[in-house]
Amino acid sequence: MTETARPSQLTAVPNNEGVDAAVAAARRVVGALLHTGDRSPVEMAAVAAQLDAVAQHLERHAPTREERLVDMWGGEGVTRHDPVTGPENAVAPPLHLDGREDGSVEGRVTLGLPYQGPPGCVHGGISALMLDHTLGVANHWAGDSGMTGTLTLRYHRPTPLFEELVVTARQVSVDGRKIRTTGEITAAGEVCVSADGIFVNKHLPRPR
Amino acid sequence: MTETARPSQLTAVPNNEGVDAAVAAARRVVGALLHTGDRSPVEMAAVAAQLDAVAQHLERHAPTREERLVDMWGGEGVTRHDPVTGPENAVAPPLHLDGREDGSVEGRVTLGLPYQGPPGCVHGGISALMLDHTLGVANHWAGDSGMTGTLTLRYHRPTPLFEELVVTARQVSVDGRKIRTTGEITAAGEVCVSADGIFVNKHLPRPR
Repeated sequence: MTETARPSQLTAVPNNEGVDAAVAAARRVVGALLHTGDRSPVEMAAVAAQLDAVAQHLERHAPTREERLVDMWGGEGVTRHDPVTGPENAVAPPLHLDGREDGSVEGRVTLGLPYQGPPGCVHGGISALMLDHTLGVANHWAGDSGMTGTLTLRYHRPTPLFEELVVTARQVSVDGRKIRTTGEITAAGEVCVSADGIFVNKHLPRPR
Repeated sequence: MTETARPSQLTAVPNNEGVDAAVAAARRVVGALLHTGDRSPVEMAAVAAQLDAVAQHLERHAPTREERLVDMWGGEGVTRHDPVTGPENAVAPPLHLDGREDGSVEGRVTLGLPYQGPPGCVHGGISALMLDHTLGVANHWAGDSGMTGTLTLRYHRPTPLFEELVVTARQVSVDGRKIRTTGEITAAGEVCVSADGIFVNKHLPRPR
């Protein structure tokens, strides 16, 4: 059952079947392992053996890396594999982003233990990861995109885990190949982290 | 079989048993799912069911979130759960960092598909995540540490996947509560990303 993407939907829409469902379950395993830790009565050797068997089965049926890269980057539209929004990537929270009429983009996400830095708070580098990606998506939404040249992050207050975060970004200016984009992460209306990026309008070739 | 930590070892040493072994297997599943994608003959509904069963078993035996947070932050020494170096966190590559005699810290890591941004390259936000964390560890090694205030990243050239990266950082100065720290990621001797951070010497309380 695939949701229908709205035109303003700027990140991949997860399916509830196929690889997306398996990835959602893998994401749940990652969280549960971190939540369980090493003091539980669970027989971790048995868990490791089950997970290794799943991995081995998948690896046996995987294409070569080159084939997979071509497949990943084929077609148009948004990526399904990136570590921020990708429904095929269990590292991704995932963050879903929508384009707004005023030209900015916005997403909402609540992060758990896999993304912890200071006690009970989001790792500063995870905030950087989400903002770098969101600024890039804001550039796509605005029409001029490119690769990150410089990214400056300002940490205003700790970013909480387990609470809804709002991640927003907008393109500020385009001057030749130089694109300036800003964004921020807020919790309960307060800015936790802000970002200022300079992007360069160039793209790496897609594998073929 | 636990390796003995060297005094200069600044990140958690993974065990080959217990939760660390299960997390290593989960990390392998994450990579294999991304590598397999949605075109393989693997019955993904069955994989999803197996992984959901593992997650459910773990969740059933997990402590409460509050208990787990106290446990995570108990004792001294390095964290085992963070998303960069943590052997208990399948999101972490993981990166291992060592302190060097000249006061800097260094780690080597090779990243695969879960960390991809541009085709065949490391996501700029993943480089930011690794550098933010490594600068923080460099502060610990130097003796004055704190929370990230401002972090500036400069992207010099694409950072390759599937090749060994060297991640280094060093504390540059301490002026009152303000700490300045720099670092970089190199591949084959060339700087891919450099970082300049201002840290503030304060720490959030640990859960008890």
